[in-house]
This record gives sequence, structure tokens and C-alpha cells, in this order.
Amino acid sequence: MTNQSENDRIAEATYPQVIDRLRAQLAFLVTCDRLKNVVRTTHLHDGSRAENSAEHSWHLALTALTLAEYAPPDVNLPRVVELLVIHDLVEIYAGDLYFGATDEQHDEQALQEQAAAQALFGLLPVDRRGHFQKLWEEFEAKQTSEARFAKALDALQPMLLTWGEGGKGCLEREPDLTARRLLMLKEKHLQAFPALWRWAQQMIDEATRLGTIAAG
Amino acid sequence: MTNQSENDRIAEATYPQVIDRLRAQLAFLVTCDRLKNVVRTTHLHDGSRAENSAEHSWHLALTALTLAEYAPPDVNLPRVVELLVIHDLVEIYAGDLYFGATDEQHDEQALQEQAAAQALFGLLPVDRRGHFQKLWEEFEAKQTSEARFAKALDALQPMLLTWGEGGKGCLEREPDLTARRLLMLKEKHLQAFPALWRWAQQMIDEATRLGTIAAG
Repeated sequence: MTNQSENDRIAEATYPQVIDRLRAQLAFLVTCDRLKNVVRTTHLHDGSRAENSAEHSWHLALTALTLAEYAPPDVNLPRVVELLVIHDLVEIYAGDLYFGATDEQHDEQALQEQAAAQALFGLLPVDRRGHFQKLWEEFEAKQTSEARFAKALDALQPMLLTWGEGGKGCLEREPDLTARRLLMLKEKHLQAFPALWRWAQQMIDEATRLGTIAAG
Repeated sequence: MTNQSENDRIAEATYPQVIDRLRAQLAFLVTCDRLKNVVRTTHLHDGSRAENSAEHSWHLALTALTLAEYAPPDVNLPRVVELLVIHDLVEIYAGDLYFGATDEQHDEQALQEQAAAQALFGLLPVDRRGHFQKLWEEFEAKQTSEARFAKALDALQPMLLTWGEGGKGCLEREPDLTARRLLMLKEKHLQAFPALWRWAQQMIDEATRLGTIAAG
């Protein structure tokens, strides 16, 4: 077929120039496969097992597409999705942090994550490293509308899995996580999104009534 | 704080109008959590376990962001990412199909997936169902540049996990999957992307040499 032989000809001509780039990009993607083995403290909604950071990142991207209307009108939604797809990648080298970690643990983790970002994005062709590094820094800094909305969804999704309708709670796994403490941890990320924050509070009130979280 | 009380006031005023929408959207997101329990035939790159469709979808979104330069210049990349985030959702109700399924099995699966799409997207507020339904139909039809590129990545990613550098192959799990048969199955999705197709062929040549796939 003409199309095929034409494609083959193009491939033949351009391949030597792209092979090094492609090899680097595919090595990056194979390394990123390891995010599927990074286990979070949150469990799936059915309680069957802990969630991993790769499927969590997918769920957040879907959450952004589904809850787009709750973002401020100036938010660039594709950017939110990009932030969410890459936001946990550094955990491949740095691991995930427990929600109740101390300030010292957070500082230590931040240093480890910076080194992890450099190592991981360093696998990419030189001219692409900056793009991924900037995305990750933007998410961490939470200074843009996109990063704030992404972070709000990242705060909301584990609540939905744990205490959303039919959720099992996490009384046994996290006996110290009371409703009061949980809402205190979540408020700073969610309060700028009134409908989401209101819903989160209502869900936790209901969970307290059902006994899947302690009032505290 | 002023900001907080202002947010509370807005939340108070708008919440009754959004609560039904939000409840429907969150029910959809909780249902979508089940994609994390849909197991694929492909294993992780380290061979430790089968991949699930949720983490596969995340890996594809990341693959699109990483390999964007191999898409034709007219491709709307955020659309590709959207297609990839939602492309497997119907498996929640319809399950995944084995790569070697017969034409009859594919026809039967197509009917089940149509019903699944209707049931799943039907959980969303009426005015949002069409958006997700259209995305899914676009991916399935493979008529747009975005859907073709998304499908090419969907064809490439499991090859990368299975036979990419250090990959374990799948000789025991799939003894009938020879190099010849694999490339025949992949060609229609990949040949329009010369660098990716060339790399895929080269990777399978190398796997044949290493003995992680039979020549066939």
C-alpha cells in the first residue's frame, strides 16, 4: 500500500535523529511504571485493598474532568489534568508521606522529593526536563489557580473513597484520625471551593453520625 | 477571617442549587473507582502482578504528555489525554477483552460496552452525559487524529511494559502470542506514527533475539 511505503520512507529518513530522544522518553515511562507499586494509606471505596499512587493519579484526572464546573472560571483545565497526572511521580524515589507526619518529616520529605524530581525528570531529553519539573513545582507551590484546584481535588478524593456513600471509614487503620482533625487538615485546601468544602463537611458529619469516624 | 466568612456566605447561597449535581457527580466518581479492580492481561514491567485498567489509563495519559512530539502537528493534546483518561471506563460494567478474542467476541463486547457507557455516563447530571459519551465514542471510532494517536499509545504501552528494556515477556501467560502475530495486531494502530512503529518493531526483534517472545 502506498501509505505504508510512504510512512516507511519517512521513518527511515527521520529515525536516526529521533532514536536517542525516544529511547530516553521510553526509559522515563518504564521508570514511571513503578508508581503503580507505591502504596497509599487510603483504601479503595470497597475497602478491598490500599490504593496505589498511579491509580490515584488517574482518579484525580477523572475527578478534574468531572468537577470542572467547581473551578474558578479562569482555570485552565488541561493544565490541572497535567498537574494531577504528574503530581505524585516523585514518590517513585521519595515514597509517600503519612497524613499525620510532623513538620520535620515534611521538611525532610521536601528535600527528598526535590532530589527525586531531578533524578526522574533527568531521564528525559534535556529540552523536556524543564516542562515536567515546572509542572511538579507548580503543583507543590500551590500559587496558581490550577495548582490550587488540583490540590483541592487531591484533598477531596481520599475523603470520597473513605467516607463517601457506602464508604467503610478507616477507624481500625487510623484510630487517631478524628472528624475534627481531618477537617482541620483539609480546610486549607478546600475552603476556597465553597460547594466542595461544604459537601466535605456534610459528608464527615454524616460519617460521624454513622460511626465510621470518631467526632474527636 | 473575612475570606472564610465570604466563602461561607457564597456556599450558603449556591449550595441548594448544586447539591443534586454534586451528588450525581460524586456517585459517578465512586462508581469509577471500580476500574481499579478491572485486571488486564498485561503485567507491570517488573512482572510482579497484572496491571489494572485505572493505572493503565494513568500511564497512557503520562505517555501522551511524554510522547506528544510524535503526534501530527494538528493534534489537540488535551483532548488526547481526556480520551485516554476515560477510554476504559466502560470496562467497569463490560469487563476487558482478551487480545486474541474472535470477531464474534468483539461484536458481543461492543454491544455490552454501549450498554455500559449508557449506564455509567447516565449517573452524571443530564447536561454532562453527552460530553463523556462523545469522548468514549470518539476513542472507539478512531476517526479523529486525537483518537488515532490515543489508540496508538494504547497499543504501544503494553508492549513497552512487556518487552521494553528489562521486560520479562509473557511466554508462560501467552504462549500463542508470537512476534509475527503481535506485530500483525499492532500494525494497524501504529503504522501511521513512523518513529513509534519503527521502535516497536525493533523492540520485538530484540525480544525475539533474547527469547522473551517466539518468532512464530
